[in-house]
Amino acid sequence: MYIPTLADMSAAEERIRPHIHRTPVLTSSFINALAGAELFFKCENFQKAGAFKARGASNAVFGLSDAQAAKGVATHSSGNHGTCLSYAAGRRGIPCTVVMPRTAPQAKKDAVRGYGGKVVECEPSTSSREAVFAEVVAETGAEFVHPYNDPRVIAGQATCSKELIGQVDGLDAVIAPIGGGGMVSGTCLTLSNLAPHIRVYAAEPEQADDAYRSFRAGHIIADDAPNTVADGLKVPLKELTWHFVRNHVTDILTASEEEIVDAMKLVWKRMKMVMEPSSAVPLATILKNRDLFAGKRVGIIITGGNVDLDKLPWQ
Amino acid sequence: MYIPTLADMSAAEERIRPHIHRTPVLTSSFINALAGAELFFKCENFQKAGAFKARGASNAVFGLSDAQAAKGVATHSSGNHGTCLSYAAGRRGIPCTVVMPRTAPQAKKDAVRGYGGKVVECEPSTSSREAVFAEVVAETGAEFVHPYNDPRVIAGQATCSKELIGQVDGLDAVIAPIGGGGMVSGTCLTLSNLAPHIRVYAAEPEQADDAYRSFRAGHIIADDAPNTVADGLKVPLKELTWHFVRNHVTDILTASEEEIVDAMKLVWKRMKMVMEPSSAVPLATILKNRDLFAGKRVGIIITGGNVDLDKLPWQ
Repeated sequence: MYIPTLADMSAAEERIRPHIHRTPVLTSSFINALAGAELFFKCENFQKAGAFKARGASNAVFGLSDAQAAKGVATHSSGNHGTCLSYAAGRRGIPCTVVMPRTAPQAKKDAVRGYGGKVVECEPSTSSREAVFAEVVAETGAEFVHPYNDPRVIAGQATCSKELIGQVDGLDAVIAPIGGGGMVSGTCLTLSNLAPHIRVYAAEPEQADDAYRSFRAGHIIADDAPNTVADGLKVPLKELTWHFVRNHVTDILTASEEEIVDAMKLVWKRMKMVMEPSSAVPLATILKNRDLFAGKRVGIIITGGNVDLDKLPWQ
Repeated sequence: MYIPTLADMSAAEERIRPHIHRTPVLTSSFINALAGAELFFKCENFQKAGAFKARGASNAVFGLSDAQAAKGVATHSSGNHGTCLSYAAGRRGIPCTVVMPRTAPQAKKDAVRGYGGKVVECEPSTSSREAVFAEVVAETGAEFVHPYNDPRVIAGQATCSKELIGQVDGLDAVIAPIGGGGMVSGTCLTLSNLAPHIRVYAAEPEQADDAYRSFRAGHIIADDAPNTVADGLKVPLKELTWHFVRNHVTDILTASEEEIVDAMKLVWKRMKMVMEPSSAVPLATILKNRDLFAGKRVGIIITGGNVDLDKLPWQ
């Protein structure tokens, strides 16, 4: 297992610069007053393709040799990673195949295709996905880019908190949602090296709290089919992300479905930002753990903004 | 009739600086490709109190003498001006009264009260509003701050395009929605003085096209009760705003209700921004007048982000 280093993050920073946005950091005096803390929202919902995953995907795609690249990239994802890998491959002009359950939302399939990627459907089961994916790779020779358990991807995500600490001075903590742990691992990678006094927290839905339980148990626990409105956070930790979580995360906090939706609506209403339910989990946990963050300067990674506007969770 | 000057805009700029945000300018390569033009969105939806009207209201409130200020300010508005005047008065710590029809949305009343202002209800008719408002002023001696037909308000709104031309080089045109014409007048004031080569366009709903018809007729036409999803744009021009529109606007373009809602949803979806229907009218007119803007660099004023998240127009 190769563990990405600060040098990998720096290389990623150079490599992906032409392909990603340096996203803004926004604040809300209203929400600060509610939280009793100073919150700095790092807006990856404004990122290319609508999510931080454009960072890791771009780093993987643009790090390929020409020979590798000619065969293209492939992944399995029904979320932002598929869209973002398609975005990055499109920028390089190489093929991209995304294996998705046929039951995935039409909008997600359209998003992959919108950037030029190819969608190959599988049945909604792990065995079907693995079989179909193996076929795709055998046929194309495409490079597999895992959504998070990949050092290139983690080094790419790590550029986000590098930007953040250049934009905001004196942070006491950074908090990000945790699903597979790619963003949290990248955050740990950067901060443990460049600003080790900044604490890293992870935030997770109560109804998909496998990382929370893993953290307390001391080994990876994977759930079978967790159900949460924060659909980007259903996937389990893997060995590489577990390494970062175990060694560098201060704590994992959880929030209920109602708290997540309330925090999401609060940000839409007061900050005029479209963000995904997953992105609301950190704020939800801050508002229910006011003592922990009282008077602190806290960075919050808003991970993405890809929601179905026809099906909002408060309706 | 006193017509505000560039010096008034510059004074406003200094006066309101501590009380407003320098809002960001965002772009979308997807929407640029659709439009065949380079569009620069000036995001006043991220402004204090959620709308550009915080500029004009702050300029009026902070320009008052202490003696005037002690008696407070008053206005009639069921929209952003009431909220923003309450915001500005709250910053100065003076009373603010907003006369609103009792039928106005609860959210609008709550917004005024949230910043410390007082809501006085009237019947939903012009005669009742005028009578109730006269009573408020007689009782309090409050200074009337009109939503747009006021040189202090126009000078405040004019600071927005001053910022914009400092943020984006080489603009060919700026387009803003038009209701009463306060933002368009401020835009004309700044650009006709500082960048007279930049064309100013106004965008209006077809179903509330009184400014469009006024512009063509050569005199103010006021409609009785126009009906449009862009509820910020139902009010008529007045003499001061008519002065700027008549003398400095290149053209007024209109869009249908469906075009407005489509443009609104497009921005929410691709740019991850919450904006009001009124703010979508300029983009709607650009997308239906592609030849007019082809290859041009166009600034678009996104006027506000105060929408009812429980009642979105595409649902």
